[in-house]
Amino acid sequence: MNIPSPYLLMLGDSSDPLSIKTARGIHYWRPEKCLGQLRLNESTASLSLPDMDIKTASDMGVKTLVLGTANAGGVLAEHWIPLIVEAIELGMNIASGLHQKLTDVPAIAHAANLRGVSLFDLRHNNEQLDVGSGAKRSGRRLLTVGTDCSVGKMFTTLALEKAMQDKGFDATFCATGQTGILIQGSGIAIDAVVADFISGATESLSPECQPHQWQLIEGQGSLLNPAFSGVTMGLLHGAQPDALVLCHEVGRDHMRHLPHMAMPELEDIMVLSVSLAKLTSSNPQFVGIAVNTSVLDDAEALSYLNALSKQYGLPATDPVRYGVSSIVTRIEQQF
Amino acid sequence: MNIPSPYLLMLGDSSDPLSIKTARGIHYWRPEKCLGQLRLNESTASLSLPDMDIKTASDMGVKTLVLGTANAGGVLAEHWIPLIVEAIELGMNIASGLHQKLTDVPAIAHAANLRGVSLFDLRHNNEQLDVGSGAKRSGRRLLTVGTDCSVGKMFTTLALEKAMQDKGFDATFCATGQTGILIQGSGIAIDAVVADFISGATESLSPECQPHQWQLIEGQGSLLNPAFSGVTMGLLHGAQPDALVLCHEVGRDHMRHLPHMAMPELEDIMVLSVSLAKLTSSNPQFVGIAVNTSVLDDAEALSYLNALSKQYGLPATDPVRYGVSSIVTRIEQQF
Repeated sequence: MNIPSPYLLMLGDSSDPLSIKTARGIHYWRPEKCLGQLRLNESTASLSLPDMDIKTASDMGVKTLVLGTANAGGVLAEHWIPLIVEAIELGMNIASGLHQKLTDVPAIAHAANLRGVSLFDLRHNNEQLDVGSGAKRSGRRLLTVGTDCSVGKMFTTLALEKAMQDKGFDATFCATGQTGILIQGSGIAIDAVVADFISGATESLSPECQPHQWQLIEGQGSLLNPAFSGVTMGLLHGAQPDALVLCHEVGRDHMRHLPHMAMPELEDIMVLSVSLAKLTSSNPQFVGIAVNTSVLDDAEALSYLNALSKQYGLPATDPVRYGVSSIVTRIEQQF
Repeated sequence: MNIPSPYLLMLGDSSDPLSIKTARGIHYWRPEKCLGQLRLNESTASLSLPDMDIKTASDMGVKTLVLGTANAGGVLAEHWIPLIVEAIELGMNIASGLHQKLTDVPAIAHAANLRGVSLFDLRHNNEQLDVGSGAKRSGRRLLTVGTDCSVGKMFTTLALEKAMQDKGFDATFCATGQTGILIQGSGIAIDAVVADFISGATESLSPECQPHQWQLIEGQGSLLNPAFSGVTMGLLHGAQPDALVLCHEVGRDHMRHLPHMAMPELEDIMVLSVSLAKLTSSNPQFVGIAVNTSVLDDAEALSYLNALSKQYGLPATDPVRYGVSSIVTRIEQQF
């Protein structure tokens, strides 16, 4: 999947700032890809990008209209269809993170076929994949792993990419989820592949590279979240990580959406990750801990991170508050 | 997926006995479901079932034509299509383990639609699934786990079902692979579901039941096979096993199709399986070891199994040579 940029970000018609989370992520990490936003109402949540209609966007050179909202049910609103068709007729590709496939909407599929543009359904995978082999690949790989889902694995991986590039590393973000794919313009939604191909998809996403190059692979789920552990396990074995970064959120008292499942200890995830990663990586090592400390005040957060750092002998940081340069320093020292 | 029996087993046109392995499994475990075989040449490998054409099979009450061969590439031979259409027109359902979907062959899809029969594409999953929750379910569950793929997990699980039923247990085989599904007439091909739903599919396959009932879940892959470990992990967490049986094949010097991957130690798989299973099962315990000892002579096999049994304090048997009653006795004692 290779999504041409620049993008026009469709923000739809919801005034809820949470509904444009995906679009906000794209704009935050790749502002240079985002030429404008398309809002259907004055009250629609905004990213403070230039408001732009389809025609203007086309004149400005936009290559892809991104449906960057997460509306209830993941269904495409009927009244969006004419706008999407208009964009297609002006030569734009369409990328969507909705459950409902663009290719299943006859008017959209027909227009795209006629105009020869691409429809990117990010939640669905049509690529021909191979099963994994576990064969050693050259180059360096880092994988983020978590105590749970939604603890900042994508953010941390992107922050590491930026900080490593700033220090002169040849480092590339490898996207495994739909927001990550829209940010990077490429990737594989690993939770959407057929189960047999989880590790194979990960291997194809982070292929052999030069010995000095780093592939920074976005983690998914958790080895100890019973809903998604299969995805996490296949990702770990396929990623063949040299370096691991643990992601966690302070204050979560049970696994996401699973009130009967206690949160695992950080140490349990670390021991298990290293032990399992050894199947395909000769010497996997943790290089840092990234924590979402948003429920703590500054003094509490620093004291918490300090304690973690001492306990595990690793840099511990909140990437949003304090950046990830401490982790990059550790990578410089260790590799 | 519920596949109506009795079956007519299509054996096709290959003289290679290995090509009819799936059909042989169905006939071995569920002879009462198999009314006849359909061979296209005199040299086609045989199961010694009555040879039967489509018309006769229909007159005898066959409900499903099973394409029980594994031909190269998994593609449907052109000259089979008229036979399949004939079966459909006489009211039979069609079940296929081929990669190529029945529903993708226009003549077959059209005929099935017209006649109102079902097309079962076992390698593909169309069911609406939920993600797993890990919530505790009543009833007893047993899962077979292996050192690798193709080490006898399906055979062992089916042998346990038969031996437990013979001893008066209320025990049911839960199929997770295509041959198992054809044998049982129901199940979910767990390696064909979208990655996010591995554990959820397993939970729906082995739902809450009476406290004395046993669900015997067919294992897949291996936690230490880098190609399929994601499937195995999701299956383990979804199965919530009370009892585990380890399956192994003597004499394999590397993981299947992966000459660079050494076979794991039995002990490593057992320790890892119990440790990971504890996420969703309060007290998972191994109750036996099932080994394919076909490369050993009788004396060697018995001595090998004896040594294993002493080492791990568990019954160790070759299900094909010596049955699984020792494992059933252990289950009786332990639960």
